[in-house]
Amino acid sequence: MTKKNIDYSVYLVTDRRNKTDDEFLNIIEESIKGGTTVVQLREKDASTKEFYDLALKVKEITSRYDVPLLINDRIDIALAVDSEGVHIGQDDMPADIARSIIGDDKILGVSASTVEEAKKAELDGADYIGSGAVFPTSTKEDADSVPLDLLKEIVDSIDIPTVAIGGITLENAPLLKDSGIAGFSVVSAIMSAEDPKEASLKLKEIYFS
Amino acid sequence: MTKKNIDYSVYLVTDRRNKTDDEFLNIIEESIKGGTTVVQLREKDASTKEFYDLALKVKEITSRYDVPLLINDRIDIALAVDSEGVHIGQDDMPADIARSIIGDDKILGVSASTVEEAKKAELDGADYIGSGAVFPTSTKEDADSVPLDLLKEIVDSIDIPTVAIGGITLENAPLLKDSGIAGFSVVSAIMSAEDPKEASLKLKEIYFS
Repeated sequence: MTKKNIDYSVYLVTDRRNKTDDEFLNIIEESIKGGTTVVQLREKDASTKEFYDLALKVKEITSRYDVPLLINDRIDIALAVDSEGVHIGQDDMPADIARSIIGDDKILGVSASTVEEAKKAELDGADYIGSGAVFPTSTKEDADSVPLDLLKEIVDSIDIPTVAIGGITLENAPLLKDSGIAGFSVVSAIMSAEDPKEASLKLKEIYFS
Repeated sequence: MTKKNIDYSVYLVTDRRNKTDDEFLNIIEESIKGGTTVVQLREKDASTKEFYDLALKVKEITSRYDVPLLINDRIDIALAVDSEGVHIGQDDMPADIARSIIGDDKILGVSASTVEEAKKAELDGADYIGSGAVFPTSTKEDADSVPLDLLKEIVDSIDIPTVAIGGITLENAPLLKDSGIAGFSVVSAIMSAEDPKEASLKLKEIYFS
């Protein structure tokens, strides 16, 4: 895969809480079978060694299905497991520094909840923007709110793809249809689904319908 | 400076707790003025951006005095601020992977509390070993104990320098004199000293006496 034609339509952000490693890895694999196109591995409490070991296991799965793996925040982990890229937030490494470390070939995603942040991220070398929270969310309590009109404004302000994140469900995803986004980024909608494969398939159907 | 002739004699590991940034940076600078030869920046709770911003400030000081700065655990931060190296523990990135990411020119330190860990670290590309806790310590509650006879065994088992760490004070440092170590690695003995410059000076005097 080259990073120029990444399909961001169903973008899974992981959440390992309350799951065994086997359950966690199984959800990721099932979601890919259902249509997940990007996996972002997000760990906030793991030691570097735990994160590294887990990232290796996830990379084995994503590589098998030729789905890009992005590491949240930790560029060292991304380099260590040779993931396809990283996703950084506004509390992480500055985007231009991140780009200089990972080189031009890896995907750089940046969280942006304002037009200014989105434009700066694009200038700093981001390949795509993650923008949200578009709906209320329980996963990231500190997330800024990005209402639909602001989301459209962000999409229109940059030339790189925007992925919408935050509280997206099978029920409200259709509301984002005309926003110009490149995909739905979800945590709970897949991680907490009774059937992660089915949930991913339905999100993909909604996106491409 | 080239990494081949690093002076490890007074090796400061930072602890920012209960200090303002100004106090913290001042302690580092004073300790260098007193004779600290290596600074390891250790942060366990900072966000990546906080860690990066702080590392930039510390790097400005260490560069001014031509003292090598090592980043604890986080290779991404080391690359971002172009520090002279990293120090990793047994719960961090595997040492061989760390070496492959940082390249041959940066210093790689590895914590080792057994002969086996020390030998493996050397094989994996470590430039030096940090071994401890040689004395009881309040800073790292989970630290393994490395009594003096084991410390000597570790020193003798490898060809790279061993720095002793853990509970070292001006009072007990002389006990380590005949162990063959390359230096005293301390946290509290400098960070909590009334006069960090004087404490560093005295540690250096003890080491070279």
